[in-house]
Amino acid sequence: MTSAHFLSVRDRLLRAFLSREIGPFAVENRMTSFDGIVAARAVLTARGGMTSHAAVVARGMGKCAVVGCQAISVDAEHRRFDVGGETVSEGDWITLDGATGKVYRGDLPTTPSEVVSVIRGSRSARTAPSYQAFARLLGWADETRRLKVRANADTPADARIARGFGAEGIGLCRTEHMFFEGDRITAMREMIVARDEGGRRRALAKLLPIQRADFEGIFEAMNGLPVTIRLLDPPLHEFLPHGGEESKLLARTLGMQRADLSRIVESLRETNPMLGHRGCRLGITYPEITEMQGRAIFEAAVRAKRRGLDVRPEIMVPLVAVLAEFENQRDILLDVAKQVLGGMGEEVAYSIGTMIELPRAALTADEIATKADFFSFGTNDLTQTTFGLSRDDAGRFLPNYVDRGILPDDPFQVLDRNGVGKLIGFAVSAGRSVRPELKVGICGEHGGEPRSVKFCHTIGLDYVSCSPYRVPIARLAAAHAALESSAPDKTRSP
Amino acid sequence: MTSAHFLSVRDRLLRAFLSREIGPFAVENRMTSFDGIVAARAVLTARGGMTSHAAVVARGMGKCAVVGCQAISVDAEHRRFDVGGETVSEGDWITLDGATGKVYRGDLPTTPSEVVSVIRGSRSARTAPSYQAFARLLGWADETRRLKVRANADTPADARIARGFGAEGIGLCRTEHMFFEGDRITAMREMIVARDEGGRRRALAKLLPIQRADFEGIFEAMNGLPVTIRLLDPPLHEFLPHGGEESKLLARTLGMQRADLSRIVESLRETNPMLGHRGCRLGITYPEITEMQGRAIFEAAVRAKRRGLDVRPEIMVPLVAVLAEFENQRDILLDVAKQVLGGMGEEVAYSIGTMIELPRAALTADEIATKADFFSFGTNDLTQTTFGLSRDDAGRFLPNYVDRGILPDDPFQVLDRNGVGKLIGFAVSAGRSVRPELKVGICGEHGGEPRSVKFCHTIGLDYVSCSPYRVPIARLAAAHAALESSAPDKTRSP
Repeated sequence: MTSAHFLSVRDRLLRAFLSREIGPFAVENRMTSFDGIVAARAVLTARGGMTSHAAVVARGMGKCAVVGCQAISVDAEHRRFDVGGETVSEGDWITLDGATGKVYRGDLPTTPSEVVSVIRGSRSARTAPSYQAFARLLGWADETRRLKVRANADTPADARIARGFGAEGIGLCRTEHMFFEGDRITAMREMIVARDEGGRRRALAKLLPIQRADFEGIFEAMNGLPVTIRLLDPPLHEFLPHGGEESKLLARTLGMQRADLSRIVESLRETNPMLGHRGCRLGITYPEITEMQGRAIFEAAVRAKRRGLDVRPEIMVPLVAVLAEFENQRDILLDVAKQVLGGMGEEVAYSIGTMIELPRAALTADEIATKADFFSFGTNDLTQTTFGLSRDDAGRFLPNYVDRGILPDDPFQVLDRNGVGKLIGFAVSAGRSVRPELKVGICGEHGGEPRSVKFCHTIGLDYVSCSPYRVPIARLAAAHAALESSAPDKTRSP
Repeated sequence: MTSAHFLSVRDRLLRAFLSREIGPFAVENRMTSFDGIVAARAVLTARGGMTSHAAVVARGMGKCAVVGCQAISVDAEHRRFDVGGETVSEGDWITLDGATGKVYRGDLPTTPSEVVSVIRGSRSARTAPSYQAFARLLGWADETRRLKVRANADTPADARIARGFGAEGIGLCRTEHMFFEGDRITAMREMIVARDEGGRRRALAKLLPIQRADFEGIFEAMNGLPVTIRLLDPPLHEFLPHGGEESKLLARTLGMQRADLSRIVESLRETNPMLGHRGCRLGITYPEITEMQGRAIFEAAVRAKRRGLDVRPEIMVPLVAVLAEFENQRDILLDVAKQVLGGMGEEVAYSIGTMIELPRAALTADEIATKADFFSFGTNDLTQTTFGLSRDDAGRFLPNYVDRGILPDDPFQVLDRNGVGKLIGFAVSAGRSVRPELKVGICGEHGGEPRSVKFCHTIGLDYVSCSPYRVPIARLAAAHAALESSAPDKTRSP
């Protein structure tokens, strides 16, 4: 249970955060909702579902979130919400129970989780009996399981938490999240609105040291363990303000006419951003972005190595549909590696692989595996494209589908074995047929869902990767899967 | 070549039609662009590509369209466009050459196509030597080909044109296009904004006789040939006005507060409409829509039959991802059939099948075929989901992909054999493995593209379906495919 001073977020964010439901809003301008969640103690939304972007982000931060609370009606203009005839205004206290979804009026007393307190370092394991029981149980799980468990973490702080929960590496570091904090977003926006490659390169030069420092911090937290870094993924308009004070401010900061800025923002707007100019399509259109990111990774790796750390970067190209896209990005990265490592006179063991998150990539996995060192199944997007179902729009009918049994489960929560799973199984076989040593994992939210983890075990994946706070669940599920798959052998041998 | 009095469309449409590029605009509010194209003599756009919705719609109407003309800069406010230092204003004449993409200033003399004139009935075949040569060549093609060729047609007029071009049935009748004309859109909108099922049913009752009459007209035009009718497909917000005069007028017509209407429009807005609440998802949420459409089809079939016509309706459920969706819609249709045919004491031979346009449907084709009488591959959407690529947004990078050889062709023009084709091949085998008599065709734009038609021949489809004006191309390509596939046999037998 978490008490939250109602919407005690920064004023700039407040309007946006209040004014729209989380689902669509989060995608339209992920930055703002992400910032809003960072600033919030807990999240309560009128719309969206368990797998909407806000819920996923909040869960990854270990924050309490109650989403899709249809009983509340948010009045953004007056900064309040109404519920059952009562009004809760900005500044009032409410208390959320993330386990039951209950929302209480007032600042109820809450107790922090013992396990989380130990992992965050605010309590000693010796005085925490619940933590000890937790650690013992998971120790047994670790002895049993075959699947490795990694975490999805985007910052050194998250990486440390993930390691505390037992993550054996980072399966997904989303580099775009690094661009949202502080002044970084301004340099990112400068890059996006630049008129030409020169302008973009100048802005990217400002981002380089920031990314490098982040990567170095993550390599340090994950010393001795692999770190999979995904190149820039979301469409560029997600980084831009859409009107209002923020646009005015940005135009002033960048010395632009506001109309020019609006025109650029408008020109980047997409009908279906999920299927738009994103992922490796960005790196192909603007190779200088991939170059900068590659340079930041390799320079960080060398710096960390010189500090005596054992670094194992795995660079992941997102949203590949055809081999030629992967080759294009890989060539850029190999070039940068040669320049940086050659120039600094260091060797770093790195690998370059791809996310398999589009049906076409799965269907042509044998081609892609000729060049990719690893596959990581992005099961969130793979589920969206396989079903033709937008995670941010599905809230309108998907719960009803599950209630009526048209679908056995929400496929964004529990991996759909029969459809998405078939593609994954096909891609694993096809990929390993041309590259037997191909490393294969998944990094969607399914990586922390027990039934999905069992499926991953069954089809022979090497690892699952999930939110830091779900790592213990995945460790346990992986052990269950191993026990279940060995059980028949036991009954056979008397 | 077509002369067009520059944008001689109705004033209501003019602003919208001028103000936005066709691609995204068409999807945001398909109705308006559709109406705009209906009203226009020819279409010239600054953005979009050969496969953007506007180009596809214009081609289907046999209208000249030059899209993606980047040299022009449209100034919606002043109702003009600038090109190379010159200004063309509303009311000026321009002449377009759809074959070369050239745009001429002024009203140049043009000659109507002889073939089209004969097919439209404005000229006799006997006095048209080009038409006679055309008919002879295609007669030879018909003797040779195995693949049937159908047309995508949504109105009795289109169906007649299609038949004139040699279509052997309708492979795709998009019922939503029937809702855009005249007063129909008002009843449609009334249905969408209704507060409850009762309100929806009242509005649907107004649409029923309109749809029935359309279907009867199409059955008449296609006497003796199969007509595949797709249930409502696009998301409902495509039918609603997005602000402006039209919203004001609609609120007044429906006796609503404008704020209430805006709220409904806003609540229906989607982040990724392509992956949203559309296709059979609508018919599952609002079964009364499917009921009305089924009733209109069966009543029209009985009426046509009583007039001595040979009617062969094939009802197609769109956007199926799981068998249970199809079963749900099929059960509703079977029920309506029993009511209508039983009540009218007539028998009509009909079938119920599905579009395979999502990867998941292709992957579970063996399940779906247990209940579906036919499959029709919706290769436009199947390409979008397999590649994770929005047709309306791809213009920003897809041409560059093709120029650089990252893709050999635009996959919306030429069917991608290696990815999308693999899914189709899999689905055909899986479907026929449980139902050997399964009828299988395609109804995407690829049905009129020669290389794609050859692929369809090779994997054993029963028919292709394309725009009426592309039917001759498909007939010829199907003959080429048959000749090529029989050629090796000839070389083998001396």
